[in-house]
Amino acid sequence: MMLKVTVAYDGYNYAGWQKQDNALGIQEVIEKCLTRIHKQPIEIVSSGRTDAKVHAKGQVFHFQPVVYMPPANVQNALNTLLPDDIRIIKVEEVDDDFHARFSAKSKRYDFICTYDCDNPFIYRYAQKLFSRLDVEKMKEACQYLVGEHDFTSFCSSKIDPRKPRVKNVFRIDIIESEKEVRFIFEGNGFLRYQVRMMTGTLIAVGRNQITPYDVKKMLDAKDKNACRYNAQPHGLYLMEVKYD
Amino acid sequence: MMLKVTVAYDGYNYAGWQKQDNALGIQEVIEKCLTRIHKQPIEIVSSGRTDAKVHAKGQVFHFQPVVYMPPANVQNALNTLLPDDIRIIKVEEVDDDFHARFSAKSKRYDFICTYDCDNPFIYRYAQKLFSRLDVEKMKEACQYLVGEHDFTSFCSSKIDPRKPRVKNVFRIDIIESEKEVRFIFEGNGFLRYQVRMMTGTLIAVGRNQITPYDVKKMLDAKDKNACRYNAQPHGLYLMEVKYD
Repeated sequence: MMLKVTVAYDGYNYAGWQKQDNALGIQEVIEKCLTRIHKQPIEIVSSGRTDAKVHAKGQVFHFQPVVYMPPANVQNALNTLLPDDIRIIKVEEVDDDFHARFSAKSKRYDFICTYDCDNPFIYRYAQKLFSRLDVEKMKEACQYLVGEHDFTSFCSSKIDPRKPRVKNVFRIDIIESEKEVRFIFEGNGFLRYQVRMMTGTLIAVGRNQITPYDVKKMLDAKDKNACRYNAQPHGLYLMEVKYD
Repeated sequence: MMLKVTVAYDGYNYAGWQKQDNALGIQEVIEKCLTRIHKQPIEIVSSGRTDAKVHAKGQVFHFQPVVYMPPANVQNALNTLLPDDIRIIKVEEVDDDFHARFSAKSKRYDFICTYDCDNPFIYRYAQKLFSRLDVEKMKEACQYLVGEHDFTSFCSSKIDPRKPRVKNVFRIDIIESEKEVRFIFEGNGFLRYQVRMMTGTLIAVGRNQITPYDVKKMLDAKDKNACRYNAQPHGLYLMEVKYD
């Protein structure tokens, strides 16, 4: 029996999901609590990493419990031990062949930009915009990004060169309200920095720094130097990981 | 000419409005920025202190500028220099006899409690409640607190004993929604810890730990040991200071 756990976190104070040099990772904090509960080392496997300061409303991980505990008890025990900025949302029993990363069918990331720049409560949770974006132009640019593409131009240059760069972006929605612009990305998976680089590029389109067609040219270039835009990590939220 | 400034802050990372030993106060941060702008020491006078971790959406201070700058320029210069968790909302020219504390007619504080305890983004901004409060009972208790009373039982025991403890609470409203309970306090002024102790006492009523009539007995006691309840500082917001 395997346990599938859905976790939400305010990532602002963390070095990311994975431990970094001299900095605390969310994975490490959760593993320490599980190890305390089980009185022996427990390792967890997530759907994928999130970067420093990136938030999650629906990150998923799995682990093999060494003693049986009902899922509700695991949730309560973890939420008692975990700090307030990491909260377990759901614990479910799943088949032994469930794998948080390999079984995932799609992921949704949201990126939040705010026009509410004089709000002192928002700086950890959205990227500030000091003038309004041209949403129609950004929507035009999205058409080039949606679909199956080689996203070499929109990912970290540190990725293993043997790793495939082809990903399928199912949809990009942009929802503007009086105070914010929300970008919604859904796809079968995303490369490191891909969502933030796509968002940064769309913001550049929205500011009329580049044209929608420039985005197609950047994508077609398949060149790690083609894109120099990167949105801020604290605007990004891993919203949901979908499984069959 | 005097400048009246309205400021909002996320107080979670600060030792309060006033500087504490070895800890940063919001006043100090603002004075340093004004001193940098004016190239000479500037002191500011606020409507009153707020405690460590307490937030503000409408704190007011005044200061005497040494060189003339249009209010909009003062606001922009300050917001450029200040950290993201302190934001200037408004700057107005006022008469020389304006005083942020002595000219104030009333203050409004809100206290926010949340039922949304599995939300990792809320721990800095509300007090968590793990079961629902009896709002009708709390409203009954409010009747005893509203009006002009000696609030010796509901204030810090460190207050100068010669200082008057009589304050007029104009209204207390309690608004419950699915996810939160908001307490609204308006009065001609509040003693140190008064709002948090009144809120803590009302929560004790809402949890049926004490009766509404116990609140009247506590108030009548005029005894600094009568109340042992104190709500958490990060649930408290200075919302507005009203002047003629």
